Amino acid sequence: MQAIRDGPEWVLRLDDGQDLFETLVGFANREQVSAATIVFGIGMFRRATFGYWDGKQYQPHDLEVPHEVVALHGTIARADGMPSVHLHGAVAGPDHRLVGGHLLRATVGVLQEMLVRTFPGRTFGRPLVESWGLRMLDLEPGEHP
Amino acid sequence: MQAIRDGPEWVLRLDDGQDLFETLVGFANREQVSAATIVFGIGMFRRATFGYWDGKQYQPHDLEVPHEVVALHGTIARADGMPSVHLHGAVAGPDHRLVGGHLLRATVGVLQEMLVRTFPGRTFGRPLVESWGLRMLDLEPGEHP
Amino acid sequence: MQAIRDGPEWVLRLDDGQDLFETLVGFANREQVSAATIVFGIGMFRRATFGYWDGKQYQPHDLEVPHEVVALHGTIARADGMPSVHLHGAVAGPDHRLVGGHLLRATVGVLQEMLVRTFPGRTFGRPLVESWGLRMLDLEPGEHP
Repeated sequence: MQAIRDGPEWVLRLDDGQDLFETLVGFANREQVSAATIVFGIGMFRRATFGYWDGKQYQPHDLEVPHEVVALHGTIARADGMPSVHLHGAVAGPDHRLVGGHLLRATVGVLQEMLVRTFPGRTFGRPLVESWGLRMLDLEPGEHP
Repeated sequence: MQAIRDGPEWVLRLDDGQDLFETLVGFANREQVSAATIVFGIGMFRRATFGYWDGKQYQPHDLEVPHEVVALHGTIARADGMPSVHLHGAVAGPDHRLVGGHLLRATVGVLQEMLVRTFPGRTFGRPLVESWGLRMLDLEPGEHP
Repeated sequence: MQAIRDGPEWVLRLDDGQDLFETLVGFANREQVSAATIVFGIGMFRRATFGYWDGKQYQPHDLEVPHEVVALHGTIARADGMPSVHLHGAVAGPDHRLVGGHLLRATVGVLQEMLVRTFPGRTFGRPLVESWGLRMLDLEPGEHP
């Protein structure tokens, strides 16, 4: 992995075989990132599982072969003090058709180029919202009455 | 809705049931945004209509069920003094396959996380270009002879 | 083509009929861009060819009609001193379904709105990595032992 910074923005290059979420959590811990947008990522996934939220749970879809990553966007917040990474993405397989959704897990194939925009001095939250049964982004935790 | 700013960049969280275009137009009016890129958005749409430009008009496609939003990008300009929001997007349904195109209308489902990069001091235009029959982005209105 | 700059970020508007890669290479040469992320692009492609990396080569897919561009992301580096543009993308056709992958070539249709984040003072590399048979992004060329 490579990571370079310019102001609040980072460019990351993840390498073949790296777990996407573990690597981003490690980056957030190492660089003390508590609020960020994952602006985009491209590359390949060796493996990945996408979810569709049916109102109660994520219906999963596993990739059976490597796919080109054409869309990957999300946010880094903190939940119970730990980095919480939320990503949606889309990938193209050998037939060039796209599948995607909420990203549940992914392993980088070949490489992954990513742009991250941090918001230094801020902490985004991701509290569990019981009415939805989901952890949901809170841009200003602690600002609520 | 939540909105936080850091320099020229805003992170927005739209909430379930909000009209996407109305909410962004309201944001642009309230914050006097006359030039911006909508860098990305993820979340869900309860409903949305995508268009394909066939050279004469947008052929519409309505979503029949909620979809995961995996790509959402565009620009905010001014047309006749009013905010003009142009968005393209892609969404994944229960079968995890993607549909998308030019976004004609959308209602947020669950939530929508968005990054917006404004260009303070600038105004982008979106004049009607008669030869195309389309409103098209002009990054420097008034600079033409 | 129009191009406006604000700090390290550029907004570009490419016009109907322009070759995407040639235009971005020309921009990088003219503005001496040696390190950048292509944050997003939307618009249409008259024509384009997407590739799927099968481990040995890119399996190509040609668009037969114009498509709406809904995802377009990548990086600008230098290879042998020349701009090297790497893009992945996804497009929607008349049936609103998406195809995409590694972008091999593309001709703009109607227009293309793009956001580019440059990294002044840096040079990204794209050396050929022989074990992969691919040119791969190097964020810190010359930093290796």
